[in-house]
Amino acid sequence: MTAYDELMAFQQQTEALGQVAGRLGWDQETMMARGSAGQRAEEMAAMQSVLHARRTDPRLGAWLGQIEDATLDAVGQAQMRHIRKSYDRARKVPAALATEIARVTSRAQGQWAEARAAEDVAAFLPVLKEVVRLKREEGQALADGGDVYDAMIDDYEPEMKAATLQAMFDAMRPRLVALRAAVLEKGPGPKLRGAFPEDAQMALTRRLAEQFGYDLNMGRIDKAVHPFSSGSGHDVRITTRTSADDPFNCFYSTIHEVGHACYEQGIDDAYALTPLGQGVSMGVHESQSRIYENQLGRSRAFTGWLFDEMRAVFGDIGVADADAFCRAVNAVHRGYIRTEADEVQYNLHVMLRFDLERGLMGGDLEVDDLEAAWNDRFEADFGYRVDKPSNGVLQDVHWSVGLFGYFPTYSLGNVYAGCLHEALRRDVPDLDARLAKGDTGAATAWLRENVQRHGGLKTPAQTIEDASGMVPSPEPLLSYLETKFTALYGL
Amino acid sequence: MTAYDELMAFQQQTEALGQVAGRLGWDQETMMARGSAGQRAEEMAAMQSVLHARRTDPRLGAWLGQIEDATLDAVGQAQMRHIRKSYDRARKVPAALATEIARVTSRAQGQWAEARAAEDVAAFLPVLKEVVRLKREEGQALADGGDVYDAMIDDYEPEMKAATLQAMFDAMRPRLVALRAAVLEKGPGPKLRGAFPEDAQMALTRRLAEQFGYDLNMGRIDKAVHPFSSGSGHDVRITTRTSADDPFNCFYSTIHEVGHACYEQGIDDAYALTPLGQGVSMGVHESQSRIYENQLGRSRAFTGWLFDEMRAVFGDIGVADADAFCRAVNAVHRGYIRTEADEVQYNLHVMLRFDLERGLMGGDLEVDDLEAAWNDRFEADFGYRVDKPSNGVLQDVHWSVGLFGYFPTYSLGNVYAGCLHEALRRDVPDLDARLAKGDTGAATAWLRENVQRHGGLKTPAQTIEDASGMVPSPEPLLSYLETKFTALYGL
Repeated sequence: MTAYDELMAFQQQTEALGQVAGRLGWDQETMMARGSAGQRAEEMAAMQSVLHARRTDPRLGAWLGQIEDATLDAVGQAQMRHIRKSYDRARKVPAALATEIARVTSRAQGQWAEARAAEDVAAFLPVLKEVVRLKREEGQALADGGDVYDAMIDDYEPEMKAATLQAMFDAMRPRLVALRAAVLEKGPGPKLRGAFPEDAQMALTRRLAEQFGYDLNMGRIDKAVHPFSSGSGHDVRITTRTSADDPFNCFYSTIHEVGHACYEQGIDDAYALTPLGQGVSMGVHESQSRIYENQLGRSRAFTGWLFDEMRAVFGDIGVADADAFCRAVNAVHRGYIRTEADEVQYNLHVMLRFDLERGLMGGDLEVDDLEAAWNDRFEADFGYRVDKPSNGVLQDVHWSVGLFGYFPTYSLGNVYAGCLHEALRRDVPDLDARLAKGDTGAATAWLRENVQRHGGLKTPAQTIEDASGMVPSPEPLLSYLETKFTALYGL
Repeated sequence: MTAYDELMAFQQQTEALGQVAGRLGWDQETMMARGSAGQRAEEMAAMQSVLHARRTDPRLGAWLGQIEDATLDAVGQAQMRHIRKSYDRARKVPAALATEIARVTSRAQGQWAEARAAEDVAAFLPVLKEVVRLKREEGQALADGGDVYDAMIDDYEPEMKAATLQAMFDAMRPRLVALRAAVLEKGPGPKLRGAFPEDAQMALTRRLAEQFGYDLNMGRIDKAVHPFSSGSGHDVRITTRTSADDPFNCFYSTIHEVGHACYEQGIDDAYALTPLGQGVSMGVHESQSRIYENQLGRSRAFTGWLFDEMRAVFGDIGVADADAFCRAVNAVHRGYIRTEADEVQYNLHVMLRFDLERGLMGGDLEVDDLEAAWNDRFEADFGYRVDKPSNGVLQDVHWSVGLFGYFPTYSLGNVYAGCLHEALRRDVPDLDARLAKGDTGAATAWLRENVQRHGGLKTPAQTIEDASGMVPSPEPLLSYLETKFTALYGL
């Protein structure tokens, strides 16, 4: 065995253990009884301790010192890039700091949930200050004198910089604000009315999942409070949720998670249980979930098919025809909550968080001023004031668990999806005719071939550039949104 | 921190990782999609590799060398006994062998399920040969020149020997054969007739589980092909199965697994995630599942209550009164399947497997001859020939997953249950009056106090002896069976 073979055998076990830890998380959200939570915390801590020990194992250092990357093929070099990066990162953060972050964020998550339920921002701020202080410290350790927030983004979107994101978002914000205002001026769109039994929603959601290419022979669908996708390779599971009077919540949560799951299921089998065997970044991941959910799933063509399916399952659903149904699917409402936002408003929610958390990490914004900054910014973009903290600064779990640098990848994913969608339309000219029959096969095959199968082989930006034939830019997304909503709402 | 404290902190993580590995097994049988089996094998192998590394960790040797057991209290000494034994055992088995066994048995389990469904013994034998070869190799490493099969028994029933079991079984077999013949001569007993919708079975089975003390706030019930209980401490899950025309299959599988689960849930919380925090042996475990299932669940008193409950749920069930119902619950039929066998015939099934697997491990029986040996032995004991492999050599999962030395603990558990039942009747004189009202509380409290709470504090035989006040012997079981079935069948 060469040093490279030994390293990859070691790494395969680490990846397998990472999958096991992920499955524990899935189990916790879907299957575990409430009373098992205390023991589960010990089990998760033990798994994290094992994984941390492996990521900083001295044998890794020895192998990395022996391997000359130039002697490897492109795949081997990509594996080495990931492993070196993971090893360097793990060693930059002192073990005591990592343990402290784990301890404080675990506590902070509970306090966030309580503060949110009580609409009590002040109760959350002390622990959030601790989280921010510790994450800044971690960011400084990672940044090696560079930009702290850039170092944090890099965990989720390798090689992306805050300045690049800022330029994209600066181009997007005024056009989205204008589009939003124009659409809302048209008044509320049509709404579904009818009976939507939850068992029937789940039966149709399973069909939708398979329709979009999700392989249930290597996955499963369950219900959870917050839908998610979990796992890589041959065991990728999704969750969805049902709401008795809003079947779109179930169907589009499913299609979104199916996009994530198909990315993981679509990666070349040769990369299974290696660093290349997972989606390359949060942004590229979100590009898949969003293009499945929006550019495909919410298109006029596909919703025409879905309209017939839903009437076959649920009978009268309270909208007259497929055009009205498409407006109902793409309804734009006044609201406060990011996860419930439509395509037009979603990125405004994200940009707000990006600016605020960049301020927190850079030291330009203090935790004590966070709520006021949130509320002022929200009013500037949305035109009305946040009515309660659970609709404002307390709505997302992310900051309580130390996720800084993660939010912008949501909008980056939409930008990427815009680029991919433009290329997909070029390469599959009869896409709408296919979608109108509920046939997503050509689209998902194109995405698998051009994006998904590569896993972590290339950088995120290169993955999108190679697939779309363009340097990622927000222009295709903006043009798609303006065209779509102008037509839908007769602007 | 003393060396003992450090050791126990390390051990706690090992126990937590053991729970995680167990949960993967649960997931595989209940939730995992078929196509994920290959990846799961890698995940299990990685977990076993981590666990093996921890069980042979040089730090363990150092701590064990520093700790003087005599300075510890009784609990500490019991912990040390378990840890020293585990350390010695783990160092005897090479890491590569342990990993290989995990990998092959994970694969073998899937192939067994497919072979059983296809009634194709030949499809299973190649992988079974691999399992047998690897387990023999492991047994030789463990035996240190002693008896290979004794070394394997010790994994499931510490300090038990094949010769002791053989002596018990020799005493039991002629009396059970005679009892079986006498009962079968009376002809088939009454049978249920009616409609038993599987959803209604599952609803009643959940009530039964709670009735017998199973805490669903720290567990859950799912369906699986082969019912089992899984996990320790605060996360103990059971599975059951349903059969549209045989509700007893579901109910008594559930009560059996609840016995196992209540043992784990009943262990002193102070032992959680330590070596004492699990059932002390498979035999003692089976004593709990069997006393719940049989001496309690199949008693005339309890079945009187169940008769009323079943009529309330299912309407007419085709038997006239509670006496006939009790004979239906305790029907003795010609049959093939161990897990469906009545109290009279069950141990004959076990003894068959005990002799065959002892032959396989000792080298007196080859895998190629296994099916013929099974069928011949079955005909000798039961008087008719096995009709298909799923009713014969392919009926149990055990050998596919490398469980050799496990089967005899089923009968040992029955022997232990006989001893405990005698003592329970002595200490709770009004037991039947309680059971007739469906109240198992006094019995389960007695078992929790005298058996379950101790976990691994004492040896298995000592646990039973302290609880029952007698050296374990098959006499109470045989006497109970002869009395019960003589009365039931008017022998």
